[in-house]
Amino acid sequence: MEELKRADEGLAFMLQYENVAWYEDGIVRILDRRIYPRKVEFVLCRTHVEVAQAITDMVTQSAGPFTAAAMGMALAAYECRDMSKEAQVDYLEKASYTISHARPTTVGRMALITGGCFEAAKIALENGENVADAIVAHTVRANNRRYSKVNQMAEYLVDLFPDNGKILTQCFAETIVGMMLKVAKQRGKQLKIYCAETRPYFQGARLTATVCNDMGFDTTLITDNMPAFAIQHEGIDVFTSAADAICLDGHVVNKVGTFQIAIVAKYLGIPYFVTGAPDIGHKSKADIHIEMRDPDFVLQAMGVKTAADGVKGYYPAFDVTPPELVSGVVTDQGIFSPYDLPRYFASGSMGEFEMVV
Amino acid sequence: MEELKRADEGLAFMLQYENVAWYEDGIVRILDRRIYPRKVEFVLCRTHVEVAQAITDMVTQSAGPFTAAAMGMALAAYECRDMSKEAQVDYLEKASYTISHARPTTVGRMALITGGCFEAAKIALENGENVADAIVAHTVRANNRRYSKVNQMAEYLVDLFPDNGKILTQCFAETIVGMMLKVAKQRGKQLKIYCAETRPYFQGARLTATVCNDMGFDTTLITDNMPAFAIQHEGIDVFTSAADAICLDGHVVNKVGTFQIAIVAKYLGIPYFVTGAPDIGHKSKADIHIEMRDPDFVLQAMGVKTAADGVKGYYPAFDVTPPELVSGVVTDQGIFSPYDLPRYFASGSMGEFEMVV
Repeated sequence: MEELKRADEGLAFMLQYENVAWYEDGIVRILDRRIYPRKVEFVLCRTHVEVAQAITDMVTQSAGPFTAAAMGMALAAYECRDMSKEAQVDYLEKASYTISHARPTTVGRMALITGGCFEAAKIALENGENVADAIVAHTVRANNRRYSKVNQMAEYLVDLFPDNGKILTQCFAETIVGMMLKVAKQRGKQLKIYCAETRPYFQGARLTATVCNDMGFDTTLITDNMPAFAIQHEGIDVFTSAADAICLDGHVVNKVGTFQIAIVAKYLGIPYFVTGAPDIGHKSKADIHIEMRDPDFVLQAMGVKTAADGVKGYYPAFDVTPPELVSGVVTDQGIFSPYDLPRYFASGSMGEFEMVV
Repeated sequence: MEELKRADEGLAFMLQYENVAWYEDGIVRILDRRIYPRKVEFVLCRTHVEVAQAITDMVTQSAGPFTAAAMGMALAAYECRDMSKEAQVDYLEKASYTISHARPTTVGRMALITGGCFEAAKIALENGENVADAIVAHTVRANNRRYSKVNQMAEYLVDLFPDNGKILTQCFAETIVGMMLKVAKQRGKQLKIYCAETRPYFQGARLTATVCNDMGFDTTLITDNMPAFAIQHEGIDVFTSAADAICLDGHVVNKVGTFQIAIVAKYLGIPYFVTGAPDIGHKSKADIHIEMRDPDFVLQAMGVKTAADGVKGYYPAFDVTPPELVSGVVTDQGIFSPYDLPRYFASGSMGEFEMVV
């Protein structure tokens, strides 16, 4: 197991920052990102139902839930290891459903992951192999495929940065941010990173800025009302973010605030590059459903209430940036115009679909 | 004294929201706006130096420091009451300097206020009157003049709102927001107010939203990364703010974030109206000095650290909105184009200068 985990340097690198959810000996350990980096604590799950609950409770974020889901499947295999082969298949199919439905917005993508694990499990059962180990090995391979694609994206993205460039980021997106900085380091580019703090959850402050700082880059945190001032006065060269979905018509769904910074970037004359693969499940803007989260969460900061009783909150989790504000979509196959995304699939790539299974 | 304070209904109204800094019997009490509205506590100052320190420490904000400065002069008069007439003049002149220099960006405006108090003090000394009382009486008169002008601005501003308009505000500016809502109420306009929380100090969340809610309006708090989404999805009609300074060339200095929302408002096709009088001390953008405050303050929220050690902060207190983003400057003399502000002075008005002395 240790061998598998260490097999790929990219994986080890990423495990450090993102996929700190791992199965071992009947337990899934998930780094609690809700309190990180002030406290480094793990949520220990002893059943796959606990893993699903941890995902629902946003213990882990960004791509973290996807690895946690796969590890939940490994744990389910451990739970049912003494049952008959048929009962194990039944148990794992149910576990796949439970885990993939942990958050309403990600059911589709999650089902691809847990379904992939389920298929790997059936093969292992046929071959009389340890099923939990087989699911872990399958996940390592799937993640490595993804990391290799993200690494390719990072190469194209870093091409777009000046040697001593100042880069503005938004939100979590640790996989791509971490990979981008790894590539920048390899190439000796001395980037200066500005992170918007990304209220109300502070992912930019707590997570993105931490990765950038950990990797030895000059990292400056700004509040979400400062991007325009910082672009203007600090000479920021590029705004970049990842995306929760890139529609085939060039609309970009990402953490709330991205749209606003993209407007500001255009007004102030700097490019906005989004990284990711077009999502075949989102043909156009019409396919986007914006998750509205608990409005009361906006009435506090880091657990301390800010507003008086009676004031209402408002919490759209994402916003949508139109293609006219997107300077380029940086994919594993190169940089595309947001108006030319169907061409991405010309090579036979499945895009976002391929990134997770 | 009580009589003076209650003389003007407008003043009593405003005291409730803004100028909760008052001199009485050798003490200046200043409402601590840093913790309001969760806690209602007063900072008690027993010397004018303590008042200056409280202003430096941002115990009070918006127009609050101006009244606090005047009350600090009354306290200085009390401190030196037993000195010779000459020594009192000398003491008050030095106090005027100390208090007006409490914050670098407001020295000019502060000096007008403490200088006005100093002049009132000299007359009182000549006439053998109680100097501290004379300064308080002078301040009440000056504030009443200001409130009457702000009331006139509010009348013009509310003219610009639809009857059931949705209004986005930014930052503190309680005088004008309070007066605006008072006028809207008198006219039966059912406004719905959206307040950006205004990081890092949360003035929008803690103060502006509280005033709006206290006055019975439907009030929604949004984080600073949500204005674009809210304008787009909630159908917001107007963005409005006050200003720390309105330059004669139409550049507007206000709490950081204003510039960004103005860019977004223009992109999304809604007007931005700024209220205030042109400032004869700011001929153009070149006269603006942006105060950079303690960067570490950005690394926390409501006293809880957000970022990892090593991450830097960045804290410009204000930003500058160019005239092309300003739909109208709403003054006590009507609505002006930002490109036509010198005309404001044609009537003989002294603009911002007249507002504070």
